[in-house]
Amino acid sequence: MAYEKEKLSEEKVFKDPVHRYVHVRDKLIWDLIGTREFQRLRRIKQLGTTYLTFHGAEHSRFGHSLGVYEIVRRMVDDVFKGRPEWDNSERDLCLCAALLHDLGHGPFSHSFEKVFHLDHENFTREIILGDTEVNQVLRRVGEDFPKAVAEVIEKTYKNKQVISLISSQIDADRMDYLQRDAYYTGVSYGHFDMERILRVMRPRDDQVVIKQSGMHAVEDYIMSRYQMYWQVYFHPVTRSAEVILSKILHRAKQLYEEGYQFKHTPAHFYSIFEGKVTLSDYLKLDESIILYYFQAWEEEEDSILSDLCKRFSNRRLFQYVEFNPNEEMVKFFELTTLFKRAGIDPDYYLVVDSSSDLPYDFYRPGEEEERLPIHLLTQDGSLKELSRQSDIVDGISGKRRTDHKLYFPQDLIMDLSVKRAAKLKIKELLKLT
Amino acid sequence: MAYEKEKLSEEKVFKDPVHRYVHVRDKLIWDLIGTREFQRLRRIKQLGTTYLTFHGAEHSRFGHSLGVYEIVRRMVDDVFKGRPEWDNSERDLCLCAALLHDLGHGPFSHSFEKVFHLDHENFTREIILGDTEVNQVLRRVGEDFPKAVAEVIEKTYKNKQVISLISSQIDADRMDYLQRDAYYTGVSYGHFDMERILRVMRPRDDQVVIKQSGMHAVEDYIMSRYQMYWQVYFHPVTRSAEVILSKILHRAKQLYEEGYQFKHTPAHFYSIFEGKVTLSDYLKLDESIILYYFQAWEEEEDSILSDLCKRFSNRRLFQYVEFNPNEEMVKFFELTTLFKRAGIDPDYYLVVDSSSDLPYDFYRPGEEEERLPIHLLTQDGSLKELSRQSDIVDGISGKRRTDHKLYFPQDLIMDLSVKRAAKLKIKELLKLT
Amino acid sequence: MAYEKEKLSEEKVFKDPVHRYVHVRDKLIWDLIGTREFQRLRRIKQLGTTYLTFHGAEHSRFGHSLGVYEIVRRMVDDVFKGRPEWDNSERDLCLCAALLHDLGHGPFSHSFEKVFHLDHENFTREIILGDTEVNQVLRRVGEDFPKAVAEVIEKTYKNKQVISLISSQIDADRMDYLQRDAYYTGVSYGHFDMERILRVMRPRDDQVVIKQSGMHAVEDYIMSRYQMYWQVYFHPVTRSAEVILSKILHRAKQLYEEGYQFKHTPAHFYSIFEGKVTLSDYLKLDESIILYYFQAWEEEEDSILSDLCKRFSNRRLFQYVEFNPNEEMVKFFELTTLFKRAGIDPDYYLVVDSSSDLPYDFYRPGEEEERLPIHLLTQDGSLKELSRQSDIVDGISGKRRTDHKLYFPQDLIMDLSVKRAAKLKIKELLKLT
Amino acid sequence: MAYEKEKLSEEKVFKDPVHRYVHVRDKLIWDLIGTREFQRLRRIKQLGTTYLTFHGAEHSRFGHSLGVYEIVRRMVDDVFKGRPEWDNSERDLCLCAALLHDLGHGPFSHSFEKVFHLDHENFTREIILGDTEVNQVLRRVGEDFPKAVAEVIEKTYKNKQVISLISSQIDADRMDYLQRDAYYTGVSYGHFDMERILRVMRPRDDQVVIKQSGMHAVEDYIMSRYQMYWQVYFHPVTRSAEVILSKILHRAKQLYEEGYQFKHTPAHFYSIFEGKVTLSDYLKLDESIILYYFQAWEEEEDSILSDLCKRFSNRRLFQYVEFNPNEEMVKFFELTTLFKRAGIDPDYYLVVDSSSDLPYDFYRPGEEEERLPIHLLTQDGSLKELSRQSDIVDGISGKRRTDHKLYFPQDLIMDLSVKRAAKLKIKELLKLT
Repeated sequence: MAYEKEKLSEEKVFKDPVHRYVHVRDKLIWDLIGTREFQRLRRIKQLGTTYLTFHGAEHSRFGHSLGVYEIVRRMVDDVFKGRPEWDNSERDLCLCAALLHDLGHGPFSHSFEKVFHLDHENFTREIILGDTEVNQVLRRVGEDFPKAVAEVIEKTYKNKQVISLISSQIDADRMDYLQRDAYYTGVSYGHFDMERILRVMRPRDDQVVIKQSGMHAVEDYIMSRYQMYWQVYFHPVTRSAEVILSKILHRAKQLYEEGYQFKHTPAHFYSIFEGKVTLSDYLKLDESIILYYFQAWEEEEDSILSDLCKRFSNRRLFQYVEFNPNEEMVKFFELTTLFKRAGIDPDYYLVVDSSSDLPYDFYRPGEEEERLPIHLLTQDGSLKELSRQSDIVDGISGKRRTDHKLYFPQDLIMDLSVKRAAKLKIKELLKLT
Repeated sequence: MAYEKEKLSEEKVFKDPVHRYVHVRDKLIWDLIGTREFQRLRRIKQLGTTYLTFHGAEHSRFGHSLGVYEIVRRMVDDVFKGRPEWDNSERDLCLCAALLHDLGHGPFSHSFEKVFHLDHENFTREIILGDTEVNQVLRRVGEDFPKAVAEVIEKTYKNKQVISLISSQIDADRMDYLQRDAYYTGVSYGHFDMERILRVMRPRDDQVVIKQSGMHAVEDYIMSRYQMYWQVYFHPVTRSAEVILSKILHRAKQLYEEGYQFKHTPAHFYSIFEGKVTLSDYLKLDESIILYYFQAWEEEEDSILSDLCKRFSNRRLFQYVEFNPNEEMVKFFELTTLFKRAGIDPDYYLVVDSSSDLPYDFYRPGEEEERLPIHLLTQDGSLKELSRQSDIVDGISGKRRTDHKLYFPQDLIMDLSVKRAAKLKIKELLKLT
Repeated sequence: MAYEKEKLSEEKVFKDPVHRYVHVRDKLIWDLIGTREFQRLRRIKQLGTTYLTFHGAEHSRFGHSLGVYEIVRRMVDDVFKGRPEWDNSERDLCLCAALLHDLGHGPFSHSFEKVFHLDHENFTREIILGDTEVNQVLRRVGEDFPKAVAEVIEKTYKNKQVISLISSQIDADRMDYLQRDAYYTGVSYGHFDMERILRVMRPRDDQVVIKQSGMHAVEDYIMSRYQMYWQVYFHPVTRSAEVILSKILHRAKQLYEEGYQFKHTPAHFYSIFEGKVTLSDYLKLDESIILYYFQAWEEEEDSILSDLCKRFSNRRLFQYVEFNPNEEMVKFFELTTLFKRAGIDPDYYLVVDSSSDLPYDFYRPGEEEERLPIHLLTQDGSLKELSRQSDIVDGISGKRRTDHKLYFPQDLIMDLSVKRAAKLKIKELLKLT
Repeated sequence: MAYEKEKLSEEKVFKDPVHRYVHVRDKLIWDLIGTREFQRLRRIKQLGTTYLTFHGAEHSRFGHSLGVYEIVRRMVDDVFKGRPEWDNSERDLCLCAALLHDLGHGPFSHSFEKVFHLDHENFTREIILGDTEVNQVLRRVGEDFPKAVAEVIEKTYKNKQVISLISSQIDADRMDYLQRDAYYTGVSYGHFDMERILRVMRPRDDQVVIKQSGMHAVEDYIMSRYQMYWQVYFHPVTRSAEVILSKILHRAKQLYEEGYQFKHTPAHFYSIFEGKVTLSDYLKLDESIILYYFQAWEEEEDSILSDLCKRFSNRRLFQYVEFNPNEEMVKFFELTTLFKRAGIDPDYYLVVDSSSDLPYDFYRPGEEEERLPIHLLTQDGSLKELSRQSDIVDGISGKRRTDHKLYFPQDLIMDLSVKRAAKLKIKELLKLT
């Protein structure tokens, strides 16, 4: 029997708090879950530094990956199978792409990617196509199968309908993470009626559309997403931890480049610092490695590196104030000067951080962030774009919201033993009392 | 104002998935949460290796500690306050002991304690009484306050009623972890009506009793506990991971004692291997440190250490069969011999592991595990022991249940290139197919 | 001791699926709950005919009334008490008004009020001020107390802050019914974080405002309300049952006025038909009385009354099509003529029904439906109107949505044994197949 | 196409709070739901008088019947289909029997059956086999089909496996009502992992067995059942309402037999009083009819009937004390005498009520209440009786628990204007203060 058709003798189930059970019947899927590259996702938190704001958010990308797989499995096996516009020969491809879509994520991805100019999507591709256990399993399906999986994840696969299951404005990825992150943080947002959405999804040409009768469930989903972004993902305390994390990485890189003698040599970071990281090096990185170094670096001579590492481990975060880059750059530069005068390095201790989100967008061809809109399938078979039908979605459609905040270590400022004048001025500018 | 009476200008809340919100008004509590020793609990998983069975169980002891505090806060402030048999001057002591009761736990405590003869309760005491941030905060209440907190946790404090809030057969610790572990694993056990139980708790002499009208809620709690023990805490797959973890620690210690040259020197373990661990060394240990070493040791020359570390990281666990130590010791010794013959070291690869629990016990003075029973407060004011009143509890009271399992690496046995005879015999004895 | 200060010797609790427990300590509240007028609310469904669409929605106004009381109790006792702008001497008035605010509702209120020009608010007032058990209890607090309670419910009480707890765009009434109706229907809308909203409510001058930090919880509440209106309250199948119910009442009244000899004389309806219903007559009306008559009338000679009653009891509802009153009145009149020609009385069998809602409104003084907006309390103490701060709310603020549907009995039309031409034309106009 | 194979063009779903959605694809099922006999179940409460204790428990037998259908549908379509020991030609029979199993229930069944010696199971049979809409639908499947459905419900059908889906110690009926009644009452008992139980059910010979791996889920179910019986179904306040209800029926019957001239003639009751109720009479009885009479009878001359009806409507229930029939019969007779002396008719106002349950039973052939035990299917294919495997179940297996209470109207006793001696003695015997 073809490998991709082999079934386990007994169905395996994972107890999952979000979907109750994740069901695995296919040997292919079971084997992928057992690879070391997939098991590594247990050591990468789904929400990076968010656990420092919401203590419950300690869950890893492992559970999320299973969840996306499970949602796609239900779409395909329970809803699409047998429908005229669905080609069931794409099933296994969909399941594998769903399971593996986050495989290239490293620890605290966002900071790492920004500081070191890495891209987790490239690593996902490399893991799928490279010399890995995952690749060995996928190749058992066919020589070209790994490439197809990578293409679906990269959104270059020829069948756009397949892509849209995993990457669209209403896809399995988002549906899982919204619910999962809401569950673990404990917030009351993030709930919507996924059962209903799944039941009204229909394959159609090069996309998946929603029967009109399910419009309100989709509205609810859009609102959940909006709330989760601003309540959880962009929470300013989380951003503060992210700022410190980035600055640790910056500092370590700079010290390395300056030839600083580390007490604890950052062997795992060499190739990253030098911009030539290999897949093998990358796969060794997980959060325990990073936290190991942060603990070790608490004892470095360099006071900035040591201070930042202690802040991260012991959650002594930066404070923040609202910041308007259009109007307050003069203030920012003034603060920069004052920080220097006070002996606080502004490169590491005075940071503007911005968050921005577009909750839903209709189709604007050619624009930078071209996004395929959600289409409703009416009773007469025609398609209508969601924001034309929904007052709620229309109210927020296409409206980008951006927040900027200025982060700084209030304790350092207040502790200044000298430079009373600088301290007073800084306090005035930051409105500290 | 006395430090322990100081209130925060604005109440702080932690969003908690189990209790919805954890409320902090007292500066004392807020300061304790901010200490580095308490923040360290974020890097210690509540359920050790259980995440390898239930992938959702990645939560740390940090959230549990907050949860126990919150339950005790509700008992004291919402239920006990103002009642005749309650001395509210013990309030702050109760809250601190609740918050700090698990402070001495290290990574994967159970295995560590067993292999290295450590005791997390000693470390809790040392952290509270030693040169730590926690101690500094506690001492602001009074010179003797740290000692009182330690005594409550050690169950030696003079007021037994205070102890029973945190350590009894129905205490805040158990009520939090049953619910919390059920939430994160996603199992349907572990739910009981804590709101009801809190409402019917009454302080009485040297214990906390339950109004008779709340008996059924307590029955439900006892059953939840029973189910959680056998469904989650003693799950054989979790035990398998625990067995491997213990054997890694054993092996590393033995190699160290034999003078083996580690490629990656286990600096963090020296004092533990030598049986003279200091508080400062101990506090550096967290799960990221352990996992860092396990990754490093995958590349050691020693094939046993390397193999076991790979097994742990990649979740290639041991299989198991039921084992009856009273009847099957001959078989066990036969297997030991066969394993040796097959070149598999039975000291590391053939392990009997036992789990045992007493779901509830009435009072049996003088016995090894003397446990204070749960008392019901009847309408006429008299006390009745729970199992005398409840058929359900009576049915399981005092009945110890013990399970033994024999763990082994099925893959190694099946891969044996040589020793066909040993392989066949092992397979027969272990009933492998 | 003053009656309103009397406490029960033991707190009473009602197990409530929405709020877990409803707590009663005050003898005043306990006595009100025990009155026959309050117990009568058990025989009035909260959502009228909605149970014919959502079979779970069989809950009565009794539970809702307890729920509104419980929310106000928490506001007052847990959040407002002790705050400078809160006058705690209004507490008992708030609790009583909350508990009794729906007391005048009759069975299937909306249809009854429309057909017979009744007003449940008048009856609430009459019950509170008239010769009732409720009035006797309230008068024990003070001679003017019943009047004050009635004024709060009627929104004429001098202290507008008190009114706003029960009647505003974010009040205890709405917060209870959205959650309760969502619970019983089983829909996934209707959930929002009431705990959070309660915690950020602040008494201020003549209203209750929301701390800015709670804005997102309020957004979620506004969206829940929007979804519940269109998904549940205005559900076209529910409206269909409501249409039939109204037509039964119309028909019975008309027959009565025409001197029709009822087999089952509608004694309970006499005074209503004659427009001179007394409080005593009104209080006898509950849903069992109505359903008793509907069953009896199934056997009346009058075929319209009999048919409509059978439809209601056996859920043989009218079908519907979208209807645009601005463009389709010609069609409506044509259908009226055709129905007559086909022997189907259009007065009873061809009905336009409209639903309309304004999800949130900012303040538009002097307009017909003047509504007090929700104000956010910023950190500097100033107030900001919600829709100015929230993109989501701004997107739907002030936008009235109205739906019209045309209801008709498809079975009657399809069964026409004669008048083939009329049937064909009706089918064409209504697009029946 | 055979009628029982006809599918609806679009699947119909009922939103259900317990199962989220109830799915109907079969025209047969849809048609049955639409019959007037099935719609009548909306007017019969699932839990009779329980809403007077748990105000949320106002749900009808309609939702429960849909729920049992849905569970059986999942068993058959999702779990059993395709398994060797399952005969799928029984599918439609199973679904119909599940849907219709409670069809013969009348209002407040338990009291009605006891007082008038009726049996709802006989009426279920009559409805299925008689001149009804339900019978017309069923006969479209086959002339013998109604009889088969009736036999499954009566447990006389030849295929015992089919019966066990609906009537056994772990059947769809119990699994629905435990969850549903827990949901509507709001109690925290009644939850168990039905998904898990469904997944481990296996058809086997003449029963349905449970794979051993699901034992703990079954334990949880048995405990839920136990708790629901004692916490909800046998709640003494509910029993008090039931006692009053029975006594109203008794009184009305006695008055009728004595030739009493009712102001409001009990036309609906004539045939019941005379012991010759017809199906057509029976089907007219629903709770609104009963409550209509109770309201009317409040105005009867007979003070007992009038008083009891007012008590029921306004929830002025009887108080109770524990009663031991083995030891306290002398006291009971003494009270009877005293009640008479005090002018309170003991036949109506002094009532012993008993509740009794056997939480689980192993097989005891030939005994009065012979019950088929639950069997676990072990890995080697053999069956083991549940209580032999489970300590928890063994602890309560075969242990019947019985409670007796003595009910009386405390208000009447306390109000006695005369007979001070009798009053004092009664108070002493009943320990009233």
